Parts: sequence; C-alpha cells; structure tokens
Amino acid sequence: MFSKILIANRGEIAVRIIRACRELGIQTVAVYSEADREALHTEMADEAICIGPARSTDSYLNMQSILSAAIVTNAEAIHPGFGFLSENSLFATMCHECNIKFIGPSEKTIDAMGNKIHARQLMQAAKVPVIPGSDGAISTLAEAEKIADEIGYPVMLKAAAGGGGKGIRKVQTKDELEKLFMAAKAEAKAAFGDDSMYLEKIIFPARHIEVQILGDSFGHVIHLGERDCSLQRNNQKVLEEAPSIVLDQKTRDEIGGIAVRAGEAVNYESAGTIEFLRDMDGQFYFMEMNTRIQVEHPITEMITGIDIVKEQIKISSGEPLEIQQAEVTFSGHAIECRINAENPAFNFAPSPGTIKTLLLPSGGLGLRVDSAMYSGVTIPPFYDSMIAKVIVHGENRFEALMKMQRALGEFVSEGVITNVDFQMDLISHPNVLAGDYDTSFLQNKFLPEWQESE
Amino acid sequence: MFSKILIANRGEIAVRIIRACRELGIQTVAVYSEADREALHTEMADEAICIGPARSTDSYLNMQSILSAAIVTNAEAIHPGFGFLSENSLFATMCHECNIKFIGPSEKTIDAMGNKIHARQLMQAAKVPVIPGSDGAISTLAEAEKIADEIGYPVMLKAAAGGGGKGIRKVQTKDELEKLFMAAKAEAKAAFGDDSMYLEKIIFPARHIEVQILGDSFGHVIHLGERDCSLQRNNQKVLEEAPSIVLDQKTRDEIGGIAVRAGEAVNYESAGTIEFLRDMDGQFYFMEMNTRIQVEHPITEMITGIDIVKEQIKISSGEPLEIQQAEVTFSGHAIECRINAENPAFNFAPSPGTIKTLLLPSGGLGLRVDSAMYSGVTIPPFYDSMIAKVIVHGENRFEALMKMQRALGEFVSEGVITNVDFQMDLISHPNVLAGDYDTSFLQNKFLPEWQESE
Repeated sequence: MFSKILIANRGEIAVRIIRACRELGIQTVAVYSEADREALHTEMADEAICIGPARSTDSYLNMQSILSAAIVTNAEAIHPGFGFLSENSLFATMCHECNIKFIGPSEKTIDAMGNKIHARQLMQAAKVPVIPGSDGAISTLAEAEKIADEIGYPVMLKAAAGGGGKGIRKVQTKDELEKLFMAAKAEAKAAFGDDSMYLEKIIFPARHIEVQILGDSFGHVIHLGERDCSLQRNNQKVLEEAPSIVLDQKTRDEIGGIAVRAGEAVNYESAGTIEFLRDMDGQFYFMEMNTRIQVEHPITEMITGIDIVKEQIKISSGEPLEIQQAEVTFSGHAIECRINAENPAFNFAPSPGTIKTLLLPSGGLGLRVDSAMYSGVTIPPFYDSMIAKVIVHGENRFEALMKMQRALGEFVSEGVITNVDFQMDLISHPNVLAGDYDTSFLQNKFLPEWQESE
Repeated sequence: MFSKILIANRGEIAVRIIRACRELGIQTVAVYSEADREALHTEMADEAICIGPARSTDSYLNMQSILSAAIVTNAEAIHPGFGFLSENSLFATMCHECNIKFIGPSEKTIDAMGNKIHARQLMQAAKVPVIPGSDGAISTLAEAEKIADEIGYPVMLKAAAGGGGKGIRKVQTKDELEKLFMAAKAEAKAAFGDDSMYLEKIIFPARHIEVQILGDSFGHVIHLGERDCSLQRNNQKVLEEAPSIVLDQKTRDEIGGIAVRAGEAVNYESAGTIEFLRDMDGQFYFMEMNTRIQVEHPITEMITGIDIVKEQIKISSGEPLEIQQAEVTFSGHAIECRINAENPAFNFAPSPGTIKTLLLPSGGLGLRVDSAMYSGVTIPPFYDSMIAKVIVHGENRFEALMKMQRALGEFVSEGVITNVDFQMDLISHPNVLAGDYDTSFLQNKFLPEWQESE
C-alpha cells in the first residue's frame, strides 16, 4: 500500500480523498492555488504545496507544477479526483514516466474512452448497445446529411473529443444541419483541438441511467448497480438517486452485466461509470464512459456499503479487488442533492463570496454531507460553486425523500445565495415524489413552473 | 400516526428525536429551561415552550409544567428521551391520565424494572440467568451477612431503587459489610426514598454486554443484537461498540433469545435494553433492564439499518412492529465515542462555557455525529456536559477504529476543554485495538497509564 498520496484537486472531492487516505493510514499532500490558501483541503492534508495562481490553467491544470509537488514530497501516487486532470491521458502518462502511480485507469483506456467515436466502436465490438448514428468520424456535410436521413431527425451532432455537455448541437432539420455543421466543427477545433464530429439519433424521452464499475489490475471487473441521474439542467446533474425506480432486479442484473462487459473490453482498472440512456420502451443505449470517480459516487456507497475511493486506492496499489459480484448487495434508497452557491432566480448565476455562518445538516441515521466549506470561508470565483453534497439513505425511496426534506430544512448558509430552496421545491414536486421524470423534466417542466411561482 | 409530539428532554437526544419526527412528518414541541433559550433543540422544534428555571427539578423534571406544555400545544404524545423523566412511572401515569401517549413501555413495566429486586425476580421466573445473590430485599445486617457468606466475598451491596451507578457499594469483607450496610441504607433512603437493599456476587472480570430489544403492543418482541459497553469510568460508559468481539453468532443468537424472553415476560412495548455481565467463562448474568432509549443506541442503528427512535414512535402510535427477527441482519462494525466538555487531566471535571468555534467531523462513508452544539453556543453548567456523540461504521472493527481516529482528528472545539484527546489515546491503546478489555480496564489500567504519560 502507498505511504503517501498527492491529491491533484480541490474542494469537497479533495477533502473526501484526504479522509479516505487517513482511514487507510496513508499520508496526504494537498496542492492549492493562491486562491485556496485557506481552503479546507489545504488545511486538512498532512502537507500542502502551492502550485500557482488562482486560474485553473496556472494551478490545478498545471501538470509540471503538480508533478514537481509530488516529487519533492515523495508522494508515490496521485489521485486526480474529478474534473481538472482526471481524464487527461497526457497527465497519466507523465505520472507514469515520473514513476508515480496515477490513480485511475491506464492512459490507453482514458484515451480510448475520451474519444467518443473510438469509445463507440469499442462498445459495439463488445456487444454493448450504442445509439444509432455514424460509425466513425464525419468529415463533410454531405456525409452528415446522408446519415441523418438514415436515422431520422432530430439528431445530435457531437464533437468526438467533447464531454461535460460541450461541443454538442441538437439538430431538428436538414436546414439546421447545414447551418450548424461547420460552426460546430470550428467550435470543437477551438475547444478540444480536434474537429472530428459524429452524429447520433436523439433518444427522447429518456432517463439517464449510469452503472458504477470497479476493475482491478488482474482483469476482475464488477458493477455496483445503477444511479438515476435524469434530473439535469443544461446537461448538468442536479439530483441523483440509486437505485433507479424504473429498473427491476432482472434489468439491473442485465445492464450491470453489460457494464461489466464494457469494462472488460477495455481492461478497465479503477472506478468508472458507464452512462446509458434508457428510452420509454426500456431499451438502453451507451452514451459514454467516465474514467474517473464521479460527483454522485456517494449514493452508490450508501446502498452498497462499499467505499469507492478506498477501492480505487487499493486497486492502484496493486491489490486485487476483494469483492466478488455475488457479494455486492443493495440496501435501501439513496439520494444526493448538489448544493451550490448560485442564484436559481437569476439563471443560476454563481454567487461566490464569504459564507458568514455555515450549519450543515447532520445527525441521525443515514445522512452524509460531503463538503469543503466552513463558517467564515470565502468561495473563490474561479472554480465551481459547490458548497456541499447532501446525501441521504433511507429504507425506501419515500423515507429517503423525507430525510432529504429534513436535511435541507437544517441547511444554514448566511452570506451567499444557494439553491437549497430550489432543491427543496424540486424534491417536493409531485413528479419527483412519484419518480415520474425524464432528462427533460427539470429544464422543460419544473423550471418554468418554478420561475412562475417565484 | 401522531401529528404532534412533545419532546421532554434537551441536548443531543432532543435534537435526535426532533429529526426523527421531522422525517416521519410529525410536528414537534420542544420544552426548554431558562438556561436553554438558545439551545439547538429550542431553535429546531416547530414550537418551543419554556417550562421553568435552569435547575432540572424546576424544568426538565417538572412534570406539571411539561404536561401543561403538551396540553396547550395539543401534543398527542411525549417522548421522554433518556435521563430526566424517561424511567419515571408516575410521569408515565400522569401522561396516561391526561390522554397523552407516553412514548415508552407501560407504567407497570417501568415500575417492575425500576425496582431491581422485583426485576430480578421476574427475570428468574422467565429463566433469564441472574447474578447469584439475595432473593428479595434484605432488612437486617444479619441477613446480609448470611447471604454474603453463602455467595462469598467480595459482594455488591445495592439499593433496590438505584440505577446509573448510584446507591452501590462494593464490599470486600465481613467487617466492611458491617461498616457499609447502614450507611448505604441511609443513602438509598435519602436518594430514592426507598431503603430496600439487596446483595449480589461480584462478577469480575467481566464484560458489559447489553442487548437492544423492540416490542410492540401486540406482544411481538425482537432483538437487534448486542452492544459491548465495557469501557467505563465510574460505571459511566465512555466508548461503546457493536457487535461485541467476544461473541460468536451462536452466542449472539442465544443471548438475543434470552433478551427477547425477558421482554416477553414483561409485555415489553417500545425500545429497551437488557444489560448483562459476561464473565470470562462466557457465562451471562442479567444486571438490569433500561426501559428507554439509550445514549449508545446509534451503534445498533448503524449495523442493522433500523432507526430505533422511529420504531419507538411507530410502536407508540399503535402500529405493529413490521420487522421480523429473521429479517434483522448485521453488517460491519460500529463504535461510538462520547465527547464531553470535561477535563480528563483534572479528574474529568466538567468544563462548561462558550464554544467559540465548533467543527464537527463529517463526510465520507459511515460517519455520524449526533450533537446539539454549534459555534458560539454556551454549554450551561446545570446539565450533562456532552458535546457530541461521534459514531462510525466500518466494514470491520479495524476499519471502524481507523475511521474513528480520522473523525476525532477532525474534531475542533475552541473555548472549552474536551475529552477528544483522551478518547483518541483510548482507541489507540493496544488493548483496545486488540479488543482485549473488561469493565475495569479503563479505570484500573488505562487511566493510571494515561495520567502517568500526561
């Protein structure tokens, strides 16, 4: 096992990883930007090294600076968390070359899954159902028009190197395709340095169902069940739950098996997520694979009792995965609400500033709050605006919802505007209470109603 | 189900109960003394009523005042928590007479178990193993001497009405018995208004093993496994864990079965605890039954996933217990450390005062902190000095201990002296790490070593 790990991240996920390391008896090194001198992750780690100015490109994305920090502190491994360098295969390669273990899958797997066209081809080869669309990159408008005609409008135009909702265009008609194709290509080139584009059928209405997998360096891959992340705004998840109420045990096993097959196809090592869309007929379609820990991983931890971050660390240190698929049991229902410093009434504008008083929900059975904030801390404007993840676990979905209401009711954060009330309204909506929603619900139904009532 | 409950308590247990009510959709009424105007339970409840001056006898023990508060607020039930009026059968009767449900067992059961001689007789009748001793009250010294000779010194002299470590004398020799008997009788008279005494053999060395039971009003009683509470100072529990590492599954089932039989013998309704001593030969002896929720109940909740406070409320409202014994499963290992405002270096003198800054441990999988404190709150000198219960749940005992180390390491409470470092040293002691301790370990082995090293 490692004796020291550097955490190449900030905020709640950095704190989460420091806590896991501490419980494993591993020393920790935090890296921080000049804006994060008083951040909790900086305070909590055994050592902390400043890696540059506030701007992410100068600090949390500064590979040389982070590797230097790892070398001077004798860190044996780097945990990249999510975002920043977590899916950057060049960084993983550089770690490798410096003889520092990158806690995540191999460079090759990151690369394969980072290119959406390549990922799609690999999944097709592994008999994982993919969304009908172009098999490979599209270079010309004529090609795009031909395929769009075949699969039928509306279609989604996507950048091969895209991700996180960027480089995506919804195309309703042939006319639109003509207008959008070259613009999207140029945008992709600018954003990702790669203008490969591809087309997919739009699966709609649908639910976003993703499956958590764990794989070790001995080729053993298991799944930890699914998460339903259909409540999204601008392709960003707002509230997640596990299990999904639209799946029965048979389907859960089936989709879990498909996810394991996907992991095996790419020799997956570490924690990863296979994201699917599920249409109203119950058909699943592979969307993409996230080759890192995800924001919403705690809900899976709550229903399985498995600490995914600790498993990542153990796997990276070369240990075999001790959990067999048959030993994974699912208990109760978990929900996560992302609490951000943002103003839902002003189009969710970030609301950085100083949190004068912060009282996080706590106590009782089945409540967990992952946060890197404390009373008096200033949320810098340079990064995401997350204050806390409120996670509840109940015997069933109803109890979990009641617990979430209780928890959000306890949330006090004076000094910044948050989305707590918005989340409270969301979990109290009849459709959410009934579990009756698809990926468009929040944006197209809930939000207009909510704005009306404000 | 009730629509409104009054909580006749303060501190963390009052807050714990308010949270459970909120998750059940039940309105809450807090009662508070003049010293608790700014207490968290006062702030959190839907309504709050001042019931008198700071002194407990004028407020939290003031039955008329509490009942008046319940009547004016239309509360349908009263949850007494632990301590204060929780085992007061007169209060339970008065609730009954006011047509307010007392959340706990019947007056008759409270009475039967409150009198230790009576409890012992009932348990003997139910074939629950009791400690060898006098069968009934002892009136005279001659009687006491005769029985002590029979069972052999050392013996324990106890007040029938005692509890919580009061009215107890350890007697080493016949000479000592002569000296202590009348004094103990007089003390019992003064403390409990009842000078009935009895004698028991001293079971030593031993572990304190207690079994949590739940019974409903239809005669259905189940157990939720055991807790090991052998780490005590002056008969006060300091750290508790579940399960006990000295029991195997067969013994767990056996002692659980005995506890269920004990509950059935007294038509037990609500949550209760049967406390046993287990000697080094593995023999169990009934000590007493606590007819209320206990401080350490969360560790059982963590390993079973059953919310004991919610079950109490559901049972009191007349619902049948939905959980069958066969459905109770045990997972992992849980530990609770009681964090108090006290100074271990000065004989654990209470250290009330204002907590300038309070940062409770949080986040990650399997950590729970039950507390009624917040930054800026003043701990009044009138009540117990508890700041928080830190509860962890790990896959196994080792993981739980590591998690507790992590959690205690995060604990910040500026302005008052606490026992956090003491608890940290305790969980790091080789005997505690190995699970090798009895009820005398903390007092006789750990404490002298610790004081030496300070």
